[in-house]
Amino acid sequence: MYQFFVAPEAINTDLKRVFITGQDVNHIKNVLRMKNGEEINVSNGTDGKEYRCAILEMTDDTVTCELRFIKEDGNELPSRIVLFQGLPKADKFELIIQKCVELGVAEIVPVSMKRCVMKVDEKKESKKVERWQAIAEAAAKQSKRGIIPTVTGVLTYGEALKKAQELDIILLPYEMADADSMGKTREIIQNIKPGQSVGIFIGPEGGFDDSEVEKANAAGAVTITLGKRILRTETAGLTVMSWLMYFLDGRDYK
Amino acid sequence: MYQFFVAPEAINTDLKRVFITGQDVNHIKNVLRMKNGEEINVSNGTDGKEYRCAILEMTDDTVTCELRFIKEDGNELPSRIVLFQGLPKADKFELIIQKCVELGVAEIVPVSMKRCVMKVDEKKESKKVERWQAIAEAAAKQSKRGIIPTVTGVLTYGEALKKAQELDIILLPYEMADADSMGKTREIIQNIKPGQSVGIFIGPEGGFDDSEVEKANAAGAVTITLGKRILRTETAGLTVMSWLMYFLDGRDYK
Repeated sequence: MYQFFVAPEAINTDLKRVFITGQDVNHIKNVLRMKNGEEINVSNGTDGKEYRCAILEMTDDTVTCELRFIKEDGNELPSRIVLFQGLPKADKFELIIQKCVELGVAEIVPVSMKRCVMKVDEKKESKKVERWQAIAEAAAKQSKRGIIPTVTGVLTYGEALKKAQELDIILLPYEMADADSMGKTREIIQNIKPGQSVGIFIGPEGGFDDSEVEKANAAGAVTITLGKRILRTETAGLTVMSWLMYFLDGRDYK
Repeated sequence: MYQFFVAPEAINTDLKRVFITGQDVNHIKNVLRMKNGEEINVSNGTDGKEYRCAILEMTDDTVTCELRFIKEDGNELPSRIVLFQGLPKADKFELIIQKCVELGVAEIVPVSMKRCVMKVDEKKESKKVERWQAIAEAAAKQSKRGIIPTVTGVLTYGEALKKAQELDIILLPYEMADADSMGKTREIIQNIKPGQSVGIFIGPEGGFDDSEVEKANAAGAVTITLGKRILRTETAGLTVMSWLMYFLDGRDYK
């Protein structure tokens, strides 16, 4: 079933009506060639619910739908997961956004770290964020997410740590010397409860600077391993996302 | 520490000598500018062991090393994992090879499936396989694998199923109607024991044809879900690889 995002005020639960406007109107009428009566999923992009609708009528600028039922849990994970990604090269970051949105991330925060090769010019930052957000929205539609994950502007390491401290758990994948580091990692991951919010810190191509790991630990981050092989920066975040999704998907947090 | 692959016969355990030849000689001498006495890791590409060496002397065509010790388990997973990937578009398949090699796959088999958009011209196939194998080798070096995973030529669906039946477990991610499909998936994944070989079947961009799922089930494949969101074909395989790596890494299979 096709999925569309609308603003929260475009869903009127009292009248059981949903109004789709903008570019999606042309898409529904002329690209998908949908007919009255066909069912679609609508999300308001923020509450994670799935609003199941049927098309009632189509004008040049509005598709009016009848709201049939609301699926409360939708397709969202029961935990809010925020990826703090050391800013990598442009094409890698776009891949990270797309893949982590598919896997259920709630927010992606590009972070300026010591070993980042990429710097975002302040003048160009808003253009970049706009592009990143568009990639997140496209991936959210394609993967049938109930929210459109946010991509923020670039934060300094200090700002990122401060933001992360609002979350319940902060994970930081880093090479551990310990022989049973994967065993310890499994303990940490499997202790995360549905509903707990999680931050994931990933270093850029050159990895974390030691001082950054120390600061993160001081801020409460827990060090984990991603196995014995060396993962590229763009593989690291989605590996942790896959693990969290595996344990959290479909679990109740009440 | 840098890692190099050599042919098995270039490692002489009796004499405690390892001989590096070919392009790596120039790389060691002139790009990395290594000196005598520096330590490197050598793998023979097949037994998964890590041969720790120190450089003894360098000539124009050979780097001779002293073999110091052999790490038996190296960086390999205790299970042989084979990815059977419905042939996707070229850039996606290259991404899949790179990422799955990082995550520990042993072999990647491109499979021609009903909904594949891509067809590989028979005349061009050997060139393609050569390119795919080079991507696997580069990723194996970068991620410090103990073997170079093989990328095979394109198999028909029937050939792929026959090959998969030599493995202990065949996983097939597919949309399941069941409300607790993730719970069942967790049971299946967590029942896999270190040492058991695993095949993963991933559909192409258009997904599996129903008849293909039936044939796989008849051949013993177990259906799993990848969560409530819709993953792209290139995300599906690496998600399953991440899960298997999580449970298998560092585990003993004796």
